[in-house]
Amino acid sequence: MSDPAGRITDSFNAQGLMTTLGAKLTRIEDGEVSIALAPRPEISQQHGYIHAGALTSILDTACGYAALTVAPVDADVLTVEFKANFLRPALGDAVVAVGKVVKAGKTITVCSGELFASREGREELIAIMQATIANIAPRAHRE
Amino acid sequence: MSDPAGRITDSFNAQGLMTTLGAKLTRIEDGEVSIALAPRPEISQQHGYIHAGALTSILDTACGYAALTVAPVDADVLTVEFKANFLRPALGDAVVAVGKVVKAGKTITVCSGELFASREGREELIAIMQATIANIAPRAHRE
Amino acid sequence: MSDPAGRITDSFNAQGLMTTLGAKLTRIEDGEVSIALAPRPEISQQHGYIHAGALTSILDTACGYAALTVAPVDADVLTVEFKANFLRPALGDAVVAVGKVVKAGKTITVCSGELFASREGREELIAIMQATIANIAPRAHRE
Amino acid sequence: MSDPAGRITDSFNAQGLMTTLGAKLTRIEDGEVSIALAPRPEISQQHGYIHAGALTSILDTACGYAALTVAPVDADVLTVEFKANFLRPALGDAVVAVGKVVKAGKTITVCSGELFASREGREELIAIMQATIANIAPRAHRE
Repeated sequence: MSDPAGRITDSFNAQGLMTTLGAKLTRIEDGEVSIALAPRPEISQQHGYIHAGALTSILDTACGYAALTVAPVDADVLTVEFKANFLRPALGDAVVAVGKVVKAGKTITVCSGELFASREGREELIAIMQATIANIAPRAHRE
Repeated sequence: MSDPAGRITDSFNAQGLMTTLGAKLTRIEDGEVSIALAPRPEISQQHGYIHAGALTSILDTACGYAALTVAPVDADVLTVEFKANFLRPALGDAVVAVGKVVKAGKTITVCSGELFASREGREELIAIMQATIANIAPRAHRE
Repeated sequence: MSDPAGRITDSFNAQGLMTTLGAKLTRIEDGEVSIALAPRPEISQQHGYIHAGALTSILDTACGYAALTVAPVDADVLTVEFKANFLRPALGDAVVAVGKVVKAGKTITVCSGELFASREGREELIAIMQATIANIAPRAHRE
Repeated sequence: MSDPAGRITDSFNAQGLMTTLGAKLTRIEDGEVSIALAPRPEISQQHGYIHAGALTSILDTACGYAALTVAPVDADVLTVEFKANFLRPALGDAVVAVGKVVKAGKTITVCSGELFASREGREELIAIMQATIANIAPRAHRE
């Protein structure tokens, strides 16, 4: 397939969890993808902040699609593992997860993710991720 | 507070994300907490499996509450960081995340998490987590 | 090659760092490898305990060789990434790193590592690792 | 103590492992510390490259001292955990680990590390780390 942005948008829209969380795909560039999320009680932890699991979900998804922008044509991607540090509570009007390719490989791509909250006109770094993504054969070739 | 199970149940019920995902708190023991989740399109990734972010959400929550069972009375817990490896797609009727305390400390507790899927009567290990949890002063004392 | 233990021993002996640290390969089983290390000023951090980097070196090596015991014949292994938590200072007469395969795959194997110190006749868990290892074609086939 | 650079240099010189590896403390700035290492057979893995454990040792040490530059006066630091991804073999004349503070806290500081190799006049990114460092009371106050 030769339209990575269209392919990523279709794939994102097929992710039930992204719809359930209320996440929006806001930017697709070569090696970089952003996903935004607004706080709601439905995605909170016990103190009302956005749950670390919801933050991780959009960080992971942003990293995976960033890897897909540099993957071989028709390859699919799969998260092998990730690690996230949570630096501050996610206060503010919205958060944005930015996934970036650090090193693209034939079978494995390493990405970094940063999650920012915008509050009163300034951005704060809320969480950081380091993720390992595998390129896999497209599903049609595997089944 | 002297009823850790009641306190954890109340806290779990106050987590909007757990309700949204459909997660159930299934076991609270000293140093160990389990949370179950059934697959639904609303929590899926693009191929229909449970999203890694949803799996991570219940692993993180199980680890956090496992840490809370051994925390000083009235302390609250906060996830400092975690790392998860995804071993297999989460196939089956349901998954269970089990969080266990590896080392309890005065300010930091380290937990491990395992996520199992039950399929056709047997359990498969789907994901593993290593998490660092901080004990923090209860909110009333911080604000 | 059909002698995994011999192959691992030869490879271990070719690792200059293992000799420099004074590490000993103490056990090779299917899916599990142990490496021992005794404290010495030459491998210490600033307070005299064994340096976290030396502990990580034997944990990583134990995990890598554990993965090699289950890798395709003639494949070589490469550490993609690892994460380690340090639970207690490494006090005692000696430490042992135990690497175990959690999930063996065609291209990626996930291992867990545990590092124990023996002190006054009992064992203490000092550090834990979660590692991702890649199977790669043997060098002769790559060059 | 009011001379962080002097304090870090003294502490570095007291680390037996750094001397054994041949590591050099090359830069101390507010929130950032660099450590260099040259390849030698004594610190190699089985194919002659610098061992991932040696790379991790200088990354961890650079992150720990970066955290120390922003820690409360007289506090000491301790590595809680780290995660490293290895992107390429460490080829070249020398490698440099750069540890940087991402978020300094009262009890916990999060750092990122990057390891570069210089080869034929250009720098390559070899490994990346995400590390959690705890501030602890100075030893005199603990014992």
